[in-house]
Amino acid sequence: MSVKVVWPQGSMALLTQLEADSISLNSRGELYDLYRNCSLAVLNSGNLTDNSKELLENYQNFEINVVRNERGLKIELINPPESSIVDGEIVSMLQKHLFSVLRDIVLTNVAHKELLKLSSDKLSKSQGITNWIFLILRNAGALLADTQPNIAVCWGGHSISTEEYNYAYKVGKELGLRKIDICTGCGPGIMEAPMRGSIMGHIQQSAEYCRRIGLTEPSIIAAEPPNSMVSELVILPDIEKRLEAFVRLGHVLIVFPGGPGTAEELLFILGIKLLRENRHNPVPLILTGNDKSRPYFEALDSFLKSSLGDEISRYYQIIINDPKAVAIEVSKGLETVHEHRNLVHESYCFNWSLTIPEELQKPFEVNHENMSALDLHKDQEPWKLAAALRRAFSGIVTGNVKEYGIKMVAEKGPFTLHGDKEIIDNMDKLMRDFIAQGRILLSERKYKPCYRFEHDK
Amino acid sequence: MSVKVVWPQGSMALLTQLEADSISLNSRGELYDLYRNCSLAVLNSGNLTDNSKELLENYQNFEINVVRNERGLKIELINPPESSIVDGEIVSMLQKHLFSVLRDIVLTNVAHKELLKLSSDKLSKSQGITNWIFLILRNAGALLADTQPNIAVCWGGHSISTEEYNYAYKVGKELGLRKIDICTGCGPGIMEAPMRGSIMGHIQQSAEYCRRIGLTEPSIIAAEPPNSMVSELVILPDIEKRLEAFVRLGHVLIVFPGGPGTAEELLFILGIKLLRENRHNPVPLILTGNDKSRPYFEALDSFLKSSLGDEISRYYQIIINDPKAVAIEVSKGLETVHEHRNLVHESYCFNWSLTIPEELQKPFEVNHENMSALDLHKDQEPWKLAAALRRAFSGIVTGNVKEYGIKMVAEKGPFTLHGDKEIIDNMDKLMRDFIAQGRILLSERKYKPCYRFEHDK
Amino acid sequence: MSVKVVWPQGSMALLTQLEADSISLNSRGELYDLYRNCSLAVLNSGNLTDNSKELLENYQNFEINVVRNERGLKIELINPPESSIVDGEIVSMLQKHLFSVLRDIVLTNVAHKELLKLSSDKLSKSQGITNWIFLILRNAGALLADTQPNIAVCWGGHSISTEEYNYAYKVGKELGLRKIDICTGCGPGIMEAPMRGSIMGHIQQSAEYCRRIGLTEPSIIAAEPPNSMVSELVILPDIEKRLEAFVRLGHVLIVFPGGPGTAEELLFILGIKLLRENRHNPVPLILTGNDKSRPYFEALDSFLKSSLGDEISRYYQIIINDPKAVAIEVSKGLETVHEHRNLVHESYCFNWSLTIPEELQKPFEVNHENMSALDLHKDQEPWKLAAALRRAFSGIVTGNVKEYGIKMVAEKGPFTLHGDKEIIDNMDKLMRDFIAQGRILLSERKYKPCYRFEHDK
Amino acid sequence: MSVKVVWPQGSMALLTQLEADSISLNSRGELYDLYRNCSLAVLNSGNLTDNSKELLENYQNFEINVVRNERGLKIELINPPESSIVDGEIVSMLQKHLFSVLRDIVLTNVAHKELLKLSSDKLSKSQGITNWIFLILRNAGALLADTQPNIAVCWGGHSISTEEYNYAYKVGKELGLRKIDICTGCGPGIMEAPMRGSIMGHIQQSAEYCRRIGLTEPSIIAAEPPNSMVSELVILPDIEKRLEAFVRLGHVLIVFPGGPGTAEELLFILGIKLLRENRHNPVPLILTGNDKSRPYFEALDSFLKSSLGDEISRYYQIIINDPKAVAIEVSKGLETVHEHRNLVHESYCFNWSLTIPEELQKPFEVNHENMSALDLHKDQEPWKLAAALRRAFSGIVTGNVKEYGIKMVAEKGPFTLHGDKEIIDNMDKLMRDFIAQGRILLSERKYKPCYRFEHDK
Repeated sequence: MSVKVVWPQGSMALLTQLEADSISLNSRGELYDLYRNCSLAVLNSGNLTDNSKELLENYQNFEINVVRNERGLKIELINPPESSIVDGEIVSMLQKHLFSVLRDIVLTNVAHKELLKLSSDKLSKSQGITNWIFLILRNAGALLADTQPNIAVCWGGHSISTEEYNYAYKVGKELGLRKIDICTGCGPGIMEAPMRGSIMGHIQQSAEYCRRIGLTEPSIIAAEPPNSMVSELVILPDIEKRLEAFVRLGHVLIVFPGGPGTAEELLFILGIKLLRENRHNPVPLILTGNDKSRPYFEALDSFLKSSLGDEISRYYQIIINDPKAVAIEVSKGLETVHEHRNLVHESYCFNWSLTIPEELQKPFEVNHENMSALDLHKDQEPWKLAAALRRAFSGIVTGNVKEYGIKMVAEKGPFTLHGDKEIIDNMDKLMRDFIAQGRILLSERKYKPCYRFEHDK
Repeated sequence: MSVKVVWPQGSMALLTQLEADSISLNSRGELYDLYRNCSLAVLNSGNLTDNSKELLENYQNFEINVVRNERGLKIELINPPESSIVDGEIVSMLQKHLFSVLRDIVLTNVAHKELLKLSSDKLSKSQGITNWIFLILRNAGALLADTQPNIAVCWGGHSISTEEYNYAYKVGKELGLRKIDICTGCGPGIMEAPMRGSIMGHIQQSAEYCRRIGLTEPSIIAAEPPNSMVSELVILPDIEKRLEAFVRLGHVLIVFPGGPGTAEELLFILGIKLLRENRHNPVPLILTGNDKSRPYFEALDSFLKSSLGDEISRYYQIIINDPKAVAIEVSKGLETVHEHRNLVHESYCFNWSLTIPEELQKPFEVNHENMSALDLHKDQEPWKLAAALRRAFSGIVTGNVKEYGIKMVAEKGPFTLHGDKEIIDNMDKLMRDFIAQGRILLSERKYKPCYRFEHDK
Repeated sequence: MSVKVVWPQGSMALLTQLEADSISLNSRGELYDLYRNCSLAVLNSGNLTDNSKELLENYQNFEINVVRNERGLKIELINPPESSIVDGEIVSMLQKHLFSVLRDIVLTNVAHKELLKLSSDKLSKSQGITNWIFLILRNAGALLADTQPNIAVCWGGHSISTEEYNYAYKVGKELGLRKIDICTGCGPGIMEAPMRGSIMGHIQQSAEYCRRIGLTEPSIIAAEPPNSMVSELVILPDIEKRLEAFVRLGHVLIVFPGGPGTAEELLFILGIKLLRENRHNPVPLILTGNDKSRPYFEALDSFLKSSLGDEISRYYQIIINDPKAVAIEVSKGLETVHEHRNLVHESYCFNWSLTIPEELQKPFEVNHENMSALDLHKDQEPWKLAAALRRAFSGIVTGNVKEYGIKMVAEKGPFTLHGDKEIIDNMDKLMRDFIAQGRILLSERKYKPCYRFEHDK
Repeated sequence: MSVKVVWPQGSMALLTQLEADSISLNSRGELYDLYRNCSLAVLNSGNLTDNSKELLENYQNFEINVVRNERGLKIELINPPESSIVDGEIVSMLQKHLFSVLRDIVLTNVAHKELLKLSSDKLSKSQGITNWIFLILRNAGALLADTQPNIAVCWGGHSISTEEYNYAYKVGKELGLRKIDICTGCGPGIMEAPMRGSIMGHIQQSAEYCRRIGLTEPSIIAAEPPNSMVSELVILPDIEKRLEAFVRLGHVLIVFPGGPGTAEELLFILGIKLLRENRHNPVPLILTGNDKSRPYFEALDSFLKSSLGDEISRYYQIIINDPKAVAIEVSKGLETVHEHRNLVHESYCFNWSLTIPEELQKPFEVNHENMSALDLHKDQEPWKLAAALRRAFSGIVTGNVKEYGIKMVAEKGPFTLHGDKEIIDNMDKLMRDFIAQGRILLSERKYKPCYRFEHDK
């Protein structure tokens, strides 16, 4: 049995007795499994897999204990993965991430919920959620008060080709040469490449520090362990809060080729941008990929136009095979955001004034019933349809890679989705493209869809 | 009308909407007067006075507003004292202190009280208070997790002679030459001199930064504005929490000559040290002054021995006129504390394991009734008598310099204190010495006692 | 015409009138071509080529001026390569390197030569050279007085396979995970891969800064522009001083697969290690490569044994396909060096006490006559043979990639090398291997040997 | 016998063998006495004395050795003054100053002289001296390339009243509140007070670092050991180079009350400002003191007007008893200097373009013959008369406090000075004022003039 001890850093180093008690208690109780599995994922950072079961099975004898003494806390790791150890010590970045897990899974879960209860009479539910997200990000040190807008959020697939990886790397390098920081979903593929590129660009510019912020969620972290470029790890409670964190923390959004998860992300932001209230709140959105991804973006573009109307294309810009042009557009976008925030006295580090309707904020509980109840019809406001489509793709991601989703589909068969013929056919086509392009799974197992499409009569 | 705007720094720069709302609201409501007066005191930092009324009367047209916009908060000062402005800007340290006031008076007052309510079922009342003090200090950035014990708390009078000032300066310089930081009550006199000396000692040692922590309380800050050496200002809710903060945050205590306030401080720590539970918890205590203060310490020593028993002198060490010897003893003390904390796995930056009985923690409400009800008799455990004597001196300080105390005595005449003849006579003698030595007030007004001593029959 | 102005940084920012005059003068005079071409190479940093002629021809209209004003110097670039510009500014690292060129080509050339003249009566010629190298490195800020031994020199080919690149990257990453810095010849291939890997390893360990020192020389820089990972560029006057700088600045040497240049490097250090005087001066030497390079190292090993005797293999260690093992051996080596330097009171940052005989220090003027005069016979002390072999490979490198060498061979035909049959045959075999493995040139042109081997009768 | 070893810092930590040899050699040879005495003075930093003999006699058994090993140099101190030691170590700032002495007395003396020989054919003698001064300052790290003009040079007496000290402290504090750095002659009195004040002002403004540059010379350092505020110590070879360093390094000059040394300083800068060539080169000059110094400045003003003509008063500004007004004028002066340097592309950190005639640069060898040969007549250009008067006061300082001057006067009687009746009478009056005000010596010994005044017939 190998045991490693890790001492706390940063905000976890100074705890009240109350906090320390509650952490050591909760980390042993009902939260233990979640906490253990997320910590294991972190220790596997950089290892490629998207099958959380495999990961968990490989390390069945791994244990993690939060030990309380008068001085505070320490973490004890029993049988940690060997790849996490160098010269007898847990690699420093992994130590840092381990405490991020403790902070976000255990501490936050307890403290913020209590705080929310307190404040519920003073804030609307929607405001309450936004305040909660802010607290999580602030607690993680992800909000920097004195920094000008310079975070580019990069969305895209975890399962991509080498060319796509290299393209995203080059975009990241051009961003780094302009000292722009990166925020992604923190897994492999597109979630890693721009971070790696940005590091190299920053180095070329003798820039001191390149932030690589990874935003993840408990139910996905085991399937997509943080890649080894992530410098700041934040775990949001669920996909909806994670998406909200992306759009309020980031300043410009870049969408690279990806699968259903990327479609979900894109529909989330389009649902927001379609709202009248957000008309004047700039959130620049760029879709980009290498030459071979041209058909991909054409298919996506046409799906969006036919589902949400032609004018949807005003809300994004497609750039094919030109990393420098992407970086220049991002720079311009940051400039626009900077001016706007100045004008309306908005914080540089959190887009408070963006309106996100409860339809997009409210966690969508994925199950067969809710999936089949989704309203995929054209006779509704475009932003509502976007919100419904977002949920549909979210359910598909859940059925593909989240542990409870896989189990659910294994037990009860695929989810049924129905709606207007046109929309359903569009979705079907898009999913077939994703499958054909290998965008669903990392491993070479043949993909078995977790959904079934049906036309409404 | 002159208006200055100050932008937030540090932890105040990133607020949730809820926090910002509550601050801007509370700073206008019932807390306004307190908040305004403390801010005014800060802006007068370095100016000598111990009469808060005078200060407040000189700046009747001063106003302070906390202005809320989407970006967070800013402070607007109307007609701030001219001495606080250089080249059109509020001096940087005063800006920092202004936000300390906002943080400790407004934010803390609201947030911590709510948090305490939440936690009351999990902690004893005494633990609750200690957790609260920890939160205030942590929130103020006063707890440094990675630093070895090196804080010397210096207690002593605000009204002292030039020789005493120079002696305390020399002690501070010797401490600074050993890179020891200073924590005081943050007013003038002994609260300033060792800070100034420590700066010079640190500079001689090319030491990067010398901490000068000032702990104060709302009811005293206007009478003793922070001196201009204070680098970190923390405002504790009342004298009892302030004293607890001193003994848990500091590592070694040094007592210079002073008046009743100093006697209160000394009795507080002696009350703690006399407890069996604290027998093995080292809190080194050194009484020191220049040659002329020898009679002063002899009087104090004899008062303590006759009141609390001869063996009380085991708990402190008296060093006359030898700054270097003091610094060497402090160094040794820090070494002892370091070893002890290591041994028992106690935090280096907060002495959690020191037991402080509720008798010492509980705020003593000073009024005529409570003062005359004090139990100043020898037939009780020494630590209880020390606690009662602490309260007696606390009441005297209140009657001398705190606004509401002065008013109370003006209305109803002096407080009555009674007890054993021996103890009462001892107190009387000590107070007469203080008065003769001019240790009660800074200004040259003749001192009119706020108390009357009576022997029990 | 595009003009960019670059202001000086670091030591070049503060010049005496005399220095500034001499620089602006010399940069226009006979040094101009050399200075211009090296600067052009720097601006092409990261671009792949090993044909300096092509590079120079592509940028015929490039000019560089050092402009003197009362404030000091600035550099004016006329028509710099577009790849060196981001958002209208020369990339920061290239700016830094531009001043390294100015410092090492122009300033050093003038100032140090004069200083050497002055000191010639006090130092032997050999000491004079070593002092000169120290001055160049000190002037470049490459010597850090307070740092423990942690520089791994990586030697190996610029023309290598992707697998070899990836292997060297992995070795670099393992070194970086142990916070070990990298020093190479600063071109592409093996000179880049470990630097890139080390950056990633350092990042994983949250290590602040990873040094990537590139040592080059004027006659090679245009053919091998600094790769984009180099953080500190130093230009030594010739290959002999560059090799001496490697072995005195570096603490452990790693040899990856390469061509004749790598053979030269290896023979240089073996010539030194064979000297009795250096018996106790540890300079750990590790030969490593991936699985496919096993035959390569076997060939090299057998060449060395048959030429220099079997016991030569005591001086190096071969590790195949195990990056972690390499890093662990390097760590141990650094430990040994650390202990030794402590023991003999030697500087951590410059191996003063290593003896380098004049035969290895003296610049070898490559021409047909000198090449054919080389004494490649076994009946001499092994270190002398190693020195002669070093020169032979040095000549081959010159004929292959240095501008004046290429011209010389074009005019007068290949160099003739002769010696003992055994040695000549060994060399011949080694060179054939290099050619077969594509280790001579980057481009796809067919290689035409610049040498002819002849057996002595 | 107590022995302390001090290891080198900064630029002294990395020496070539040649440099280390030359230092260890020279520090033992003819330079030993000078080097030892200056080091002793540094170790007495902060102790008050202006009698170098006493200092030297108190520490007759003090020795200093520069020990050479392969790793570089170390300094061995035999029987250092106890005040220089804290907890068994030499105080850090004194360690730094010890290496400044080694650098400026031993290394510079050797290296720069050789370099000057080399360059003598390329520079005029005057340029050569200016280049030399630049080299010394650069080598000492006193020139900061990236900093805007913010150095106020403070001249004034070492023997002053407490009120004068406090006034200069307040001026220093106001300068510090504006983040202005201080440069003085580094002894006690006016050379210390503004430094101390500036520290406090910087602290109030949370300004990171306050530079306190002390410029001294070998023949004065023992009589005026660096005060304990000096953060950077530079030793110039003689008074003329020291004065040139003041006016080229400083941006604004402030003259406080002083004795003959202050008169010398004032006449030096007036000699320069009177030159036509410097008409447009701003060197703001402010004379200031507290209320009681009004007669002092009136006397000085009238001496200058009657000697150099009424219009001399255009070159300075007198401010009585208003520290804030002084600081505001200095700020304005810095602004003017900033604009001018920008306009003429002059360095911010060294006033290269100020013309200083050889009459002011050339060391004045003080002896009876040269003193009596001084040309103190009005029928010459004003700047020449200023230069001659400068020399006269320089001679008086030498006779008062420099060791060789005291000896010379002891042997041969006072110096004779003659010239126009008006000028001689003016000087006589000024000197009598200085004596009456106790501005000549620190100690209480009665002053015996080292000069005699005579009217020319």
